[in-house]
This record gives sequence, structure tokens and C-alpha cells, in this order.
Amino acid sequence: MNLAILGMGTVGCGVMEVLSMNREKITGLIGEEITVSHVFVSNVDKERGVDLGEAIVTDDIDSLLNSDEIDAVIEVMGGMETTRDVLRKFLEKGIHVISANKDMLAKYIDELALVAENNGASLLYEASIAGGIPIVNAIEHGLNANRIHKVMGILNGTTNYILSKMTKDGWDYARALDEAKEKGYAEADPTNDVDGIDAKRKIVLLSRLAYGLKVDIDEVPVAGIRDVSLKDIENAMTAGFKLKLVGKSEFDGAGMSIEVAPVLLPDDHQLSSVEYEKNAVYVMGNAVGETMFYGPGAGGPETASAVVSDLINCMRNRGVAQRSARPEQSAHIKVSNVESGYYIRFGSDQESVSEYLAEKNVDYRLIDATDDTTVITGPIGQEQLERLKNDAQHGIRALYQVEGN
Amino acid sequence: MNLAILGMGTVGCGVMEVLSMNREKITGLIGEEITVSHVFVSNVDKERGVDLGEAIVTDDIDSLLNSDEIDAVIEVMGGMETTRDVLRKFLEKGIHVISANKDMLAKYIDELALVAENNGASLLYEASIAGGIPIVNAIEHGLNANRIHKVMGILNGTTNYILSKMTKDGWDYARALDEAKEKGYAEADPTNDVDGIDAKRKIVLLSRLAYGLKVDIDEVPVAGIRDVSLKDIENAMTAGFKLKLVGKSEFDGAGMSIEVAPVLLPDDHQLSSVEYEKNAVYVMGNAVGETMFYGPGAGGPETASAVVSDLINCMRNRGVAQRSARPEQSAHIKVSNVESGYYIRFGSDQESVSEYLAEKNVDYRLIDATDDTTVITGPIGQEQLERLKNDAQHGIRALYQVEGN
Repeated sequence: MNLAILGMGTVGCGVMEVLSMNREKITGLIGEEITVSHVFVSNVDKERGVDLGEAIVTDDIDSLLNSDEIDAVIEVMGGMETTRDVLRKFLEKGIHVISANKDMLAKYIDELALVAENNGASLLYEASIAGGIPIVNAIEHGLNANRIHKVMGILNGTTNYILSKMTKDGWDYARALDEAKEKGYAEADPTNDVDGIDAKRKIVLLSRLAYGLKVDIDEVPVAGIRDVSLKDIENAMTAGFKLKLVGKSEFDGAGMSIEVAPVLLPDDHQLSSVEYEKNAVYVMGNAVGETMFYGPGAGGPETASAVVSDLINCMRNRGVAQRSARPEQSAHIKVSNVESGYYIRFGSDQESVSEYLAEKNVDYRLIDATDDTTVITGPIGQEQLERLKNDAQHGIRALYQVEGN
Repeated sequence: MNLAILGMGTVGCGVMEVLSMNREKITGLIGEEITVSHVFVSNVDKERGVDLGEAIVTDDIDSLLNSDEIDAVIEVMGGMETTRDVLRKFLEKGIHVISANKDMLAKYIDELALVAENNGASLLYEASIAGGIPIVNAIEHGLNANRIHKVMGILNGTTNYILSKMTKDGWDYARALDEAKEKGYAEADPTNDVDGIDAKRKIVLLSRLAYGLKVDIDEVPVAGIRDVSLKDIENAMTAGFKLKLVGKSEFDGAGMSIEVAPVLLPDDHQLSSVEYEKNAVYVMGNAVGETMFYGPGAGGPETASAVVSDLINCMRNRGVAQRSARPEQSAHIKVSNVESGYYIRFGSDQESVSEYLAEKNVDYRLIDATDDTTVITGPIGQEQLERLKNDAQHGIRALYQVEGN
């Protein structure tokens, strides 16, 4: 069984490590030995600190595409259109592809899945949602007796680390971000993480999988955590909530609501105990009810756990289609019509906010009135929310949805 | 695709309900319609409030065993040797068996798995460990790139409900047990739950699966929660811990430690946020690190979610072996040789306990000295622990292991 690995960064090295340390078990499960026959990298001279064995290390992708020896390809190199084009060519040859590339997949998975299907190849992507957490497997196999109506996840370790530091240690955003960079949880340019773009890619892949519908990533609203203030985190805590960056979607059989935003989770919600760089995915099925899957969202061997499990499952069942039907329909994406509570911090005094909310017929409880006036509303609908947002007289300084339990 | 269901209690009715409400999805996944052709019950006249369609309802098991129409059997009727013998006969005919019967499986799974293997049938048991949580699937497929070295779970909803009520509401054991009975979480005779017997069956099945070793249930030490006092729960809380009934095992490549006992979990341990009747399984793999799987441990449609997913996975892959190799080796069960902290409540005053622990060279922190003297020790080994236990001079009134983080 010959394997090609495209990319030899953190995850690529993790894959080599896992294949080596668990060789005996993996060979037993597949029934034959796996050999890494080819490694594609952009710089063949770079020292990687990992033993590549007898693999041909090359920067010439065509030599891999023209090889007849490769049974499966692991893609952990990143990139968008160029990578898609390369993977398409492997799939066209009937070669199984395992990819951890959420950026590319969130946009092109439907296109590649069709090529895979037409050529009898598998396209597997466990590692692209929530790293080492086996959530694709859980939804496709463990929970497949259910129709799923809600998924919700802490899908980005960088932002969860920052918010945990702010919540638990009272650090401000800038200090927590610096620490995240120092620890290697955030990149020099943290845009993709802190603006919610990474979480958006994952909730897109997750929702496609959960509901069996194509999801256009450009239709998904996203808010990040750049503007989250310590004050709001502290107010939330006082009221019994934690502020977390959550990707979530719901499907009612007709339309799908989907978004990424900071939300207030009640302290006793399962997701609110997920701290620091950890990830978790909360899934609601119509038979099982509430479930949650917790684990590492990133890291070399951690992510490689998902990649190599995909490899095992695909090679153990050569020729047998392992995955759900490829979605044919596109999701109708809409704003949620479920009423919800909201956390709102107004820039005016308690008395005038109180009068104003009474006049608008909004139930609320007061959280803080030391400086600004902060309330948590009772359940209100989307229309009422829009009216509050558009009416600028009390200067809304922060507004977050409150997740029910 | 003809299905026989043995038993039509809570889970049996749940299976009917799930098959009906998700019929379209299930048919799509399997590629053909499932018909419940036979239902075996001890009392055919009992009103069950569920539509059995055109199924033959019978109390004659031989009529099912002699039928040539059955493709798979779901066993949700309970029972020990008689049930094993019936399932063996189905397996001998090459008929797939899905069982939720943890009592029987914890004792006879190896025997039945051998019969299944010899006859090309599947023996599936997702529902027998932690109800609706897809933990068998997670370990066999989602995490199969890992060697697993530790599993730990809140595997019994009744005891977790009782301990949650004691912890959160300050109720005593008797009152919490009464409430559990009233809510249907505890049976009239709660022995199997409160003495840890049910949790023991599940940790046996879980450990067998995680390490690929046969586990003799009679070798597994078990302590229940009958003697847990509110005082210990409160002391634990003060010190930053929750007292939970946990089934756990560790495997170091040579020996396996395994037990069921109440333990102190640090507040920030993922398992300590699992409250009331919910279950969760914590799994540590050598690539992925820490993972946790949370969900319902019981209930009709909840458990049926696991049963029907097994059914789908088995019928989708007819003829393809879906499960890990059947364990051939038996586990060498031993006492853990990992040092651990312990919570100890002594029946004597602070000064004498303090002198005594100094003399024995045991590090500790004092938790409470109002009446008894309660400490949490630093890491101590098994030998030192035995010495403390056997030395009766200070009357140990409670002793629980403290789980590291």
C-alpha cells in the first residue's frame, strides 16, 4: 500500500510520527503494510526533523501524478485552486484522497466529491473539522440513525484560548492574543482566526455533512472576537454565562440558519466547559437528543490521528463506498426565526434604557448599570431585534445572542 | 431487508419509533427498505402503545429461529444464558445480531464474537455502552489510528443523577435516590446501579474494545455510592473537586488496571461537567491525546439511536467485516502502579492525623477539621496506600482516589 503525502509541515510530520509509532496496529487493521512512497514539498532541502524513510522527496508534482504506484494521497499542504486542481487529478485516476485542507474544502468540496464519486475514489476530510475530534465519523456512522437539526461548535482553538484567558485570568484581548502567539496557537497575522473565518469554514463543512446539503460559504454571516471587551466577559460571568466564539447552524427541514459569532453560553451548557485551545462539537439529533464531542482542534499528532484514521477506514474497505450520499441540493440559508435572548450593553443610563425597553415591550433583567447599562432580554424575535439595533438613541455598545440550554 | 426485534420494552419501542420517524433517511443509506417482520415478546397480548405494522408478534422463539426471512436481529429483551443461546443460534445461521444487552455481553461477548466470526455474521453492541453515545464507533473507526492507554467514563445515569442532586442541591443520598426512582432513572431495586455493577459491565466492554483484550468481569473491583456522605461531597467541592462514580481502566502495554469507584474529579476535568442522568466517556489515545464523548446513557429513542446506527452500518456493508479483530489475548489485570492523590477523612483530631501523616512521610493538604479530619494527599503509591488503610489507629471514614488532570 503506497501512500503519497503532499506537504510536510506540522501535520505532515505528525502523520509520519503516527504511522511509525502505531505501525503494528495500523498494519493489522488494514491487512497490509503502508509505505510512504512519495513526499511532495516545495523545498526538498529543508530539514524537517522527521524520518521520511525511503520516500521519494520531490518538488515535482507531475512525477506523483504520473506515478502508477500510489494508492492514496494525504494532502496537508494547504492552498486553494492549485491544490484543488492537483487533488482532482488524483481523484480522476481513482486514487483516494484524504485532505485536512478546510480552507479549500469549504469552497470546493462539492466539486471534488463529484469527481471522487465518478471515479470510484474516496474523498475523506475528518481532519478538516475540529482537528483530532472524530466528528465526521460520528455524524456519518455513529449518529446516522438520526436526522440532525442543530450543530454548534467551538471550532477555533486560537479564539477559544484568547477568550478563556480573558475569562479566567481577566486579561485584556491584546495581552491574551500576544500570549496565544507566543504559545504557537495564533499566527503572526491572526486575521483568519480572530475574525471567525477559520470557524466559518468548519461550520460550513459540518453543516453540509449534518444536513446533507450544499452550503455556499459566501452566504454565511460571521463576527469575530476583535471587539469583545473584558467588560462584557465579566458581565456575562456575573450573570451565569460564558462568552465563546461559536459556529452554529440549525435546519428545520426547509431552511438553514448558519453563522459564526460570539455568544453567551449558560454555565451549565456542555460547550461552556471547553476551555483554552480545545475544540468541541455539539450535535442534536432527533433520536439521540444532545451529544457532544470534545478534543484537540489542532496539533501535529492530534490532527494526524484524524488523517490516519481516514486512511485506515478507506483502505480497510477498498471498493466499498464509506460515505453518505453527496449532497445534491443547496441549502436555503435564512435568518433564524427562533426567538432568543440577547445580551445588550447600552451607552445610556439605567432609567432611560428601562423606559425604552418597556416602551418596546421587551422583557429583560438588568446585569450591570455601573457605567453603561447592560441587560439580558427575554426571548425576542428577529424583527424586534432589528428594531432595537436600528434605533440608535441609546447607543448599543455590545450585542450578543444568549444560547438557550 | 427483514428485521426481527427481540423484546418490546422501552428500547424496543424506541427502535420502532426511530425506524418510523427517520424511515426515508435510513432507506437511503441502506439502499433498501427495512421491514420489521418479526417481534418476539413474552406476552403477546400486552398493549405497548407503538405501531408494530405487519410484524408477526410471537412468544415462540423457535418460529423466528426457523424462519428463513430474517436478515438481522435486534436484541433488546435482556436476560443472560437463555438470551446468549438464542443469539448464538441466529449467529450460527449467519444472521447479524445487534444487542443492547450489557449484562449478558459483559460476560459472553468473546464467546458470541467467535461464533459471529466463524459464520460471517456481525455482532454489534453500540447501545450496550453509554446508551446513545456512539463510543464503539468512535474507538473502532474515529480513533483507530491511536493506541489507547486510558478510558474513563460516567457510565451510569442513575448514580450520576443521585450524586449531582447531592452536589448541586445538598440533598442526602436517600432523598436523591427517591427522586431518581420517581423520575424513572432508578429501579425499585437499585442494587445494580448504586453498587456499581452496571458501570462495571460497561467498563469491561469498553476496555475490551479500547485495548483489544478479553476482560474477565469477575476480576474487576467495584465500589458503589451507597456510603457516599454529603459531608464528603461538600468537602470535595470546597477543595475544587466533584465526587463522581467513574469506571476507568489503563493499559501500559503489559497489564491493565481497571475498576469502578467514586473518585474526586478536579472541577476543570471534562468529565466533571457531566451532570444528572447524562453519561460521558473520556478516551486518551497516543496520537490524539484527550477526547470526550458526551450524551444520553439511557432512554428509548436515545438508545435506539445507537441500535439503529449499528443496523445501518451493518446493512450498508453487507459482507464486509466492519469491526476490529476479536481479542485473542486476555488482559492481565493488576492494581495500578501509578501514584495518585487520595481524599481521606480520618476519625480523629487534626493534630494526631498531622503527626501520623508526617511520620508516614505523606504530603497532604488539610481540607476540613471541623469534626473529622479530612486531607487530600500528594501522590502516593499503592503500597503506601495499603499501609495507611491497614493501620486502623485513626479510623479512616472515607477514602477516594483523586483523579489527576
